[in-house]
Amino acid sequence: MTPSLTFVAIAGLPMVVEGDDLAALITAAIKADGQTLQDGDIICIAQKVVSKAEGCLLPLAGIEASEEARQLAAETDKDPRLVQLILDESTEVVRKKLGVLIVRHRLGLVSAQAGIDQSNIKHGDDDYALLLPEDPDASATALRDAIQQQTGKSIGVLITDSHNRPWRLGTVGTAIGAAGMRVLDDHRGGTDIYGRELKVTLINRADAIAGAATLLMGETTEKIPLVIARGVPWEGCDDTAAMINRPLEEDLFR
Amino acid sequence: MTPSLTFVAIAGLPMVVEGDDLAALITAAIKADGQTLQDGDIICIAQKVVSKAEGCLLPLAGIEASEEARQLAAETDKDPRLVQLILDESTEVVRKKLGVLIVRHRLGLVSAQAGIDQSNIKHGDDDYALLLPEDPDASATALRDAIQQQTGKSIGVLITDSHNRPWRLGTVGTAIGAAGMRVLDDHRGGTDIYGRELKVTLINRADAIAGAATLLMGETTEKIPLVIARGVPWEGCDDTAAMINRPLEEDLFR
Repeated sequence: MTPSLTFVAIAGLPMVVEGDDLAALITAAIKADGQTLQDGDIICIAQKVVSKAEGCLLPLAGIEASEEARQLAAETDKDPRLVQLILDESTEVVRKKLGVLIVRHRLGLVSAQAGIDQSNIKHGDDDYALLLPEDPDASATALRDAIQQQTGKSIGVLITDSHNRPWRLGTVGTAIGAAGMRVLDDHRGGTDIYGRELKVTLINRADAIAGAATLLMGETTEKIPLVIARGVPWEGCDDTAAMINRPLEEDLFR
Repeated sequence: MTPSLTFVAIAGLPMVVEGDDLAALITAAIKADGQTLQDGDIICIAQKVVSKAEGCLLPLAGIEASEEARQLAAETDKDPRLVQLILDESTEVVRKKLGVLIVRHRLGLVSAQAGIDQSNIKHGDDDYALLLPEDPDASATALRDAIQQQTGKSIGVLITDSHNRPWRLGTVGTAIGAAGMRVLDDHRGGTDIYGRELKVTLINRADAIAGAATLLMGETTEKIPLVIARGVPWEGCDDTAAMINRPLEEDLFR
């Protein structure tokens, strides 16, 4: 059989609010869309939806900006309360300039604004911010367990987010939470087609899947944050998205 | 219809050597694999194959390493002749340490070793190096024109390569050459579902497609460097992969 990968956008997920049973909403949306989960499918869900369900939406009104946050806000032309949230979510400011604040998130991700989003989160109000889930790998695991229980299928779950990158324009989807799938595909010790040892040997499967899934989410509308990825080799395993973080001592770009 | 993206690996492309008519080999492989091109398909082809067809395979034997190359080779523990090639292909050394040499390629790409590869290129000999194509966007355009002429279909072409990234482990496929497709999908000026102006508005469609295509290439064997991507919204346009390069003055990580 010809190897192939398929990504299918699932319409119909309702607007999610804190406390919603996201797993139940996902399986209902898949069913209503006429799709059927298969063993080995990877359910890709946008971080924004997971964060909303988990109550990561905060009003800026209650936040007191520290002196550090106010200074950084002036340097970057951002709301001091938002900068305070960014600092609270981060372990390190990596780069800053007018309009740009790149930090290392407590989860290890290096990203603009600590992944905090202010679009598509609440009607008619700029004064809210949506944080990343507390523990996206745990969120993915919980979703996976619940969806497997509801459907009887062995599946993986990937929580995706859109990231900018240092040298390349345009956002791409990346994996910030994973469960039930191979995240890093390790070919170390393998050989090339001539029998020579492979030098590039660690393939980031999760980010590649997140990229295509996110493209499909964005190509449709912001209302389709749910995609099924099918055809990824199935290896039930305990990889996490946290495994992707390059160790600090290997970071040449701090 | 449910929006979907499909990536199909095409087996049977022969080992390519300098002077081969790559477009003819691609269309023959697609036909032999029982697939039929459709309008709007994007043909993803690994850089290595394009480079081989274009004669970018060089013996290290004839290369004289400069003093700069020899010093850099000692610092990075690499072959001085290889380092000379890397320098010749680059405009700037971005980072170096033992085992690592990250440069800005003359094409604008920031990558390890200027994209020069020594795996899967020639049988039984370490002393060869495969450079990136001279002008991958031009290569993609030429392939596109020839394939369109041979098949009568309106298609896009994407030349892919595997890259490492600063903060995330594992390689992902990226686009280094493109023709006949939207590379950067610009939503600037758009609004979110609540009518608020979108802040993250430039989507890198080419890298997302290259990522999934490269995953499928790697998930099969190194002998399958050809993938058809189907379902990407069709907009015949003149985007190039060179457009992806972030302008130098925006680079916070030189």
